[in-house]
Amino acid sequence: MAISALDSLLLGPLFTTDAMRACFTDEARLAAMLAAEAGLARAQARFGLVPAELAPAIEAITASSLDARALGRRTALAGVPSIPFVKAVQSRLPAALEPWFHLGATTQDVLDTALVLQLREALRVVEAELAAILPALATLARTHRATPCVGRTYGQHAAPITFGYKVAVWLTGIADIAARLPDIRARLLVVSLGGPVGTLAALGAHGPPVLAAFAEELGLGEPLICWHTLRAGMAETACWLAQLAGALAKMATDIAHLCSTEVGEVAEPYQPGRGGSSAMPHKRNPVSCTVILATQAAAKGHATTLLDAMAALHERPPGEWHGEWLSLPLLFGMLSGALREARRLAEGLEVNPARMRANLDLTHGLLFADTVATRLAPLLGRDAAHGAVEHAADTVRRTGAHLAEVLAGEPGLAGAGDLSDAFDLTPAIEAAAAWVDRATNG
Amino acid sequence: MAISALDSLLLGPLFTTDAMRACFTDEARLAAMLAAEAGLARAQARFGLVPAELAPAIEAITASSLDARALGRRTALAGVPSIPFVKAVQSRLPAALEPWFHLGATTQDVLDTALVLQLREALRVVEAELAAILPALATLARTHRATPCVGRTYGQHAAPITFGYKVAVWLTGIADIAARLPDIRARLLVVSLGGPVGTLAALGAHGPPVLAAFAEELGLGEPLICWHTLRAGMAETACWLAQLAGALAKMATDIAHLCSTEVGEVAEPYQPGRGGSSAMPHKRNPVSCTVILATQAAAKGHATTLLDAMAALHERPPGEWHGEWLSLPLLFGMLSGALREARRLAEGLEVNPARMRANLDLTHGLLFADTVATRLAPLLGRDAAHGAVEHAADTVRRTGAHLAEVLAGEPGLAGAGDLSDAFDLTPAIEAAAAWVDRATNG
Amino acid sequence: MAISALDSLLLGPLFTTDAMRACFTDEARLAAMLAAEAGLARAQARFGLVPAELAPAIEAITASSLDARALGRRTALAGVPSIPFVKAVQSRLPAALEPWFHLGATTQDVLDTALVLQLREALRVVEAELAAILPALATLARTHRATPCVGRTYGQHAAPITFGYKVAVWLTGIADIAARLPDIRARLLVVSLGGPVGTLAALGAHGPPVLAAFAEELGLGEPLICWHTLRAGMAETACWLAQLAGALAKMATDIAHLCSTEVGEVAEPYQPGRGGSSAMPHKRNPVSCTVILATQAAAKGHATTLLDAMAALHERPPGEWHGEWLSLPLLFGMLSGALREARRLAEGLEVNPARMRANLDLTHGLLFADTVATRLAPLLGRDAAHGAVEHAADTVRRTGAHLAEVLAGEPGLAGAGDLSDAFDLTPAIEAAAAWVDRATNG
Amino acid sequence: MAISALDSLLLGPLFTTDAMRACFTDEARLAAMLAAEAGLARAQARFGLVPAELAPAIEAITASSLDARALGRRTALAGVPSIPFVKAVQSRLPAALEPWFHLGATTQDVLDTALVLQLREALRVVEAELAAILPALATLARTHRATPCVGRTYGQHAAPITFGYKVAVWLTGIADIAARLPDIRARLLVVSLGGPVGTLAALGAHGPPVLAAFAEELGLGEPLICWHTLRAGMAETACWLAQLAGALAKMATDIAHLCSTEVGEVAEPYQPGRGGSSAMPHKRNPVSCTVILATQAAAKGHATTLLDAMAALHERPPGEWHGEWLSLPLLFGMLSGALREARRLAEGLEVNPARMRANLDLTHGLLFADTVATRLAPLLGRDAAHGAVEHAADTVRRTGAHLAEVLAGEPGLAGAGDLSDAFDLTPAIEAAAAWVDRATNG
Repeated sequence: MAISALDSLLLGPLFTTDAMRACFTDEARLAAMLAAEAGLARAQARFGLVPAELAPAIEAITASSLDARALGRRTALAGVPSIPFVKAVQSRLPAALEPWFHLGATTQDVLDTALVLQLREALRVVEAELAAILPALATLARTHRATPCVGRTYGQHAAPITFGYKVAVWLTGIADIAARLPDIRARLLVVSLGGPVGTLAALGAHGPPVLAAFAEELGLGEPLICWHTLRAGMAETACWLAQLAGALAKMATDIAHLCSTEVGEVAEPYQPGRGGSSAMPHKRNPVSCTVILATQAAAKGHATTLLDAMAALHERPPGEWHGEWLSLPLLFGMLSGALREARRLAEGLEVNPARMRANLDLTHGLLFADTVATRLAPLLGRDAAHGAVEHAADTVRRTGAHLAEVLAGEPGLAGAGDLSDAFDLTPAIEAAAAWVDRATNG
Repeated sequence: MAISALDSLLLGPLFTTDAMRACFTDEARLAAMLAAEAGLARAQARFGLVPAELAPAIEAITASSLDARALGRRTALAGVPSIPFVKAVQSRLPAALEPWFHLGATTQDVLDTALVLQLREALRVVEAELAAILPALATLARTHRATPCVGRTYGQHAAPITFGYKVAVWLTGIADIAARLPDIRARLLVVSLGGPVGTLAALGAHGPPVLAAFAEELGLGEPLICWHTLRAGMAETACWLAQLAGALAKMATDIAHLCSTEVGEVAEPYQPGRGGSSAMPHKRNPVSCTVILATQAAAKGHATTLLDAMAALHERPPGEWHGEWLSLPLLFGMLSGALREARRLAEGLEVNPARMRANLDLTHGLLFADTVATRLAPLLGRDAAHGAVEHAADTVRRTGAHLAEVLAGEPGLAGAGDLSDAFDLTPAIEAAAAWVDRATNG
Repeated sequence: MAISALDSLLLGPLFTTDAMRACFTDEARLAAMLAAEAGLARAQARFGLVPAELAPAIEAITASSLDARALGRRTALAGVPSIPFVKAVQSRLPAALEPWFHLGATTQDVLDTALVLQLREALRVVEAELAAILPALATLARTHRATPCVGRTYGQHAAPITFGYKVAVWLTGIADIAARLPDIRARLLVVSLGGPVGTLAALGAHGPPVLAAFAEELGLGEPLICWHTLRAGMAETACWLAQLAGALAKMATDIAHLCSTEVGEVAEPYQPGRGGSSAMPHKRNPVSCTVILATQAAAKGHATTLLDAMAALHERPPGEWHGEWLSLPLLFGMLSGALREARRLAEGLEVNPARMRANLDLTHGLLFADTVATRLAPLLGRDAAHGAVEHAADTVRRTGAHLAEVLAGEPGLAGAGDLSDAFDLTPAIEAAAAWVDRATNG
Repeated sequence: MAISALDSLLLGPLFTTDAMRACFTDEARLAAMLAAEAGLARAQARFGLVPAELAPAIEAITASSLDARALGRRTALAGVPSIPFVKAVQSRLPAALEPWFHLGATTQDVLDTALVLQLREALRVVEAELAAILPALATLARTHRATPCVGRTYGQHAAPITFGYKVAVWLTGIADIAARLPDIRARLLVVSLGGPVGTLAALGAHGPPVLAAFAEELGLGEPLICWHTLRAGMAETACWLAQLAGALAKMATDIAHLCSTEVGEVAEPYQPGRGGSSAMPHKRNPVSCTVILATQAAAKGHATTLLDAMAALHERPPGEWHGEWLSLPLLFGMLSGALREARRLAEGLEVNPARMRANLDLTHGLLFADTVATRLAPLLGRDAAHGAVEHAADTVRRTGAHLAEVLAGEPGLAGAGDLSDAFDLTPAIEAAAAWVDRATNG
């Protein structure tokens, strides 16, 4: 029963993971709201503002004992889920404690703090996948540090690299994003507590210390000032997730091409039944790449929504904040699927060095055109050398002869001496391998 | 159990409707897939390509009898839901019919045709709401065709209009989008049938006639050529929905401001418990506007995803198509909530003409500055007239005197004669009312 | 002297065209503003509202005689260019005419009508390129209606098609967008005339007839009601352009892959110096595809901006409208470059049927797996037939033997009879060619 | 002569600044390209790879002496500006030096390093504005730390705050983004040097040390591995700028509303001629807010483009990279205008404490409903207290009586004692002021 593909029984397993789903169930949300309220009660009890019995009483209420469906019906009326939630919890508390519940807090305090608690878990899911992907890619890069393959620019053969070098680029791209996770966490994982207009006025001089205690109770950071309408933490997180999607998509874009029929240099890890076609029995479609690239297609727009939400009117806006609810969990949901598939690729990619070697020979030496031109530049001038090789390359393409032969036959290059070692793969391999070593010694 | 707010028991009822949800349940999707297969069987039976018994046998299988959860697990392996679906249905068919099932078709034929069947229903939901909103707004515009109120530009009082005129602008904006629905339908609601690479080669010369028959069976249009990788219909629909969100948001932006405390010219229709605050007992927050503006914030990004999907590689792309699944139903889902709220506003908006009248007087005649300047232009020259009124306006703001008085005291305007009828609301009301009549006589 | 790549002397020629640039120069904008004012004067003179001499006096002022730089400095102060513009023009008019200039109009009337006049020209530029691209693609499709090539899904070889079929898909995609141009025009190319708050109150009963006359004078449409804050026409146009970018990008995505080294089935039209590399003398990079794909990357975001602008507060918003200025001309600018390159491809693409033929043989018969499975289905059941061919395909991949041979050696398929004609390309070619004929007979 | 509003003589001065424009002129770009080449020559000369005379010879060539227009024509042919640039520079070098120019480098090395040099300047422009805005806002916040005003949620009066508190929120929002600038710089401002496929193979073992020396020569960072297709630095910067736009837009959204006619609590700093209307002599439109909000509308989409560019195929993609050129400078350009206007607001905002005080009284005590309910909760229970005040608030709205009076007349509240000090502003002011002190003591 799902509008979202992520929540569909049919499609959800393809695009997201159970671990991420667990962060965003209604029960998880209600549990986080209860945890936020209990944390507030503990913080306030420290200062004698509420009875010490309040927090345990809240903690005794389980999320599953609340009727999410009934709360949802009342949310549609009230406009926010916190109002029916507060009433439902109050009705479950002893009468003597009920007046102290939710003291000085407002809707957004509970909802944002609860969301932050959920996002803390969601970031752990992201981190766990990253913690598996990065070493797996490092191993793959090291394994193929000296496996020569074609470097391609604009889809064309350019010059030789090694496959490990290519993997080291993927690794660095993902690791660069991963390295920012502690900063993202530090800025995102802070409690929200401001009361109706952010100043916590109802708590008088207790406001700032209660805020600090609330943060401590929940193991979250403490904001400098109320962030009801300062949404940079959310926007930055969304942009970071979209960038993570981009870094994974870099890898998937390369792999989808490398496993195309004509190139055939890698294959997605094989599993029976994986990547088939309802019509074509011979197909092995790159399912992991497909999931990652679908995520890249869909993630960017969600970043836009969170950027939109930053222009939040006064002390609470009508709509921008609620737009966040429609987007941020989806970003986490689809990223978890993309990360799972990236891990599958990192851990199990099938590499075909023989095919890589064969593809290096496809262009009859043209891959070394750059090296040859560099070799000829001191002799002919850089511009003329470039032109001479350009001309020889045309002949190669036209005749199928090897570039070395064509150049040997050029009278104008007689003085160039023996160019044959310009066609040696070794320098390209050594250069590439050095970068692999550098990128994987982190 | 939902990552998406639309599918959450807690939040879903606020942001979407049961009618739209019904279009996109897993059961609806499976039913549409079965309907597509049955339609194909009927079409092929017309030409003797499959047994006549096949279609009834497919139709005998109910969506609810398929195990969506098990299909989902296998979808995560296969990469598309159609492969386990086809196997599941085949296992339910008599052995003699099984070979003829899904004949010549491919995954995307079934999934896209099924989606189109679902979108046909979803567009009906959209249309039904529009069919209620437009006459309600027309009635509201006519009721207040001559109710004077302030026209505002850049948030500042500008010149008088009528409230009916403002409503007529909302009406026209939404009606203009609604008027494009038949074109959207004609381009979107076409069957998909191309087989593995779009050419229906397996059907030989029967390809085009089977396509036509398939379209006829399902009451859908027939494409000129296979649209597996021609996604303009989807992208246009997403952009249209985003524009519809924009047109609704125009109205909600105005109403949210008009019902702000200082302005107070309208209020959202009252319902006990609506728009309260967990902290502030006196609040009546504009919940309908909030839902609409949240939709506007979130809708735009989804249009981006569908635009992305247009650059679909060759005969089926790895990812862009699947990105559509992550976005398009969500757009429909949130639009249904926004439309429900827009209808609530159109049918029940509380209008306060007295407050509108009072606000007209707030600026001591400055609302008529434009009229006065136009009156003075033939006398002083347009530029000098503008300058004289600009200067008088400063005095009004500084002293609180009425603009008419200030102007009467200006020696340089002695020759201007009696300007008092420049402060008459009647011309502004009559002009505004004429546009209302024009816009509602459609 | 340019922040925008489109306006850079260095980069502009790559990304846009002189014809489109001419639509959006400062001079073109000022000329359009003068034309709008002159049109208004002519319309008002019909009703005796302004002197008949006013329009000729306005028309006597050339755009180049206005000091755009000085106007720009004053725009930064005033917030809109129309205020200094109106003053500058007034200072050039005879004193007797000056008071009648810009009568009843406001900033947005002049700016929006002028923009519409510019967009009319810009759409002509777009249309002219489309008018060249569509027949060129039709010719290309017909030329290769029966040139067999590989159909690819998920980047993998799938089943045979013809190259003309692929081109017919591109053609249909672009033609479908092009076919909507008349509707886009009808909704976009309407005059804007509403005065300060949209009601044209200053003109009294003359309002609606002056609006009609104004539209007639400029050869533009007449709106039902003032569209100062109804921006669907702009948003729809932006979305349409973004969809056009998408349709061109479909073609460019395919071509960029087809001209990759391993595939080599097509090449961009050759020009000396085209697509070189500063380092690699042998490179022939797909420059046309690059320009189109850069446009696709950059266009989507601009659609978002125009969708944003729809939520325009009251009678003129602070910011959303001005955001349009930052985006819409850029969309036209980059589309003109993308269309020029698409035309170049359509008119001059180099096609290599021999390479296409060679690529068809790369997979040793697997391209016909679908046909074989369909042939076996009545014998074995659809599921078992699919499984048998899947198994044989594995053998083909492992051994390099041809699928026909492998199948012939399968004892379980002894009863299947001669399958050799399942490997005949003819049915695939005929089916594909039929769709080409259908798509190009429009 | 400009497609982009930023480059228009007419509109550019409104939306951008000369300081930012100077970073992105064609001359600045060519100068940066020359600086990159000279830096490379110096770095390579350290290792004896090129003659020591090369760098001075490059430095002797001025950007203005290169013919940007001619280079642009050849760029349209070549596809990248570096190819004609390299040829043009070579033709100006002594023959003996020419072969050593651009040694081992490729197009993207020069273009990306040059762009980074330009972005270093552009970030300085951004930083300089931030360095003025932040202290100005801190001063404004401190000045009004105890100036009471209305706190508003969902556009409705909620509870009292101080104006200084509101400013402290703006300040914190902008400062949070500003605080990330050093990290942005560290990740963005790194040289690009990889040669054709990123491995610097042409330099052999000299590759990594030349890279380090190149970075040192230009005062830029050194990447771990070539970032030709690792675009996170660019994407992160774009997202950061979009978030900066969001933080400025938060302030502008508030100010645009606060200076609306009915609210009137602040005004943009006055300048003669600022914010006028071509039709309405009395208007003072919020021009600064308009520029900032237009930037917010347009900025988000550009972030999308840069996110798109991350999925860069292999060693150089056809299109995604070039899409960056179309977007990133525009983001900087519009941000500079938005920052200039934000600074104007921060330094000169006109604040009207009397009007703020008057607005506090508009709702007859309802602003204190939250305080009263909190006071009553221990007596009645939280839920009943909320209900009682809700009911009294209805009476206030209906009758215009003050909430204190209404409550005093409620028989059920007889036991509540004297509630009059619940209507004291002091606690709200003190609480708000404490947060101001905390936020401005940074």
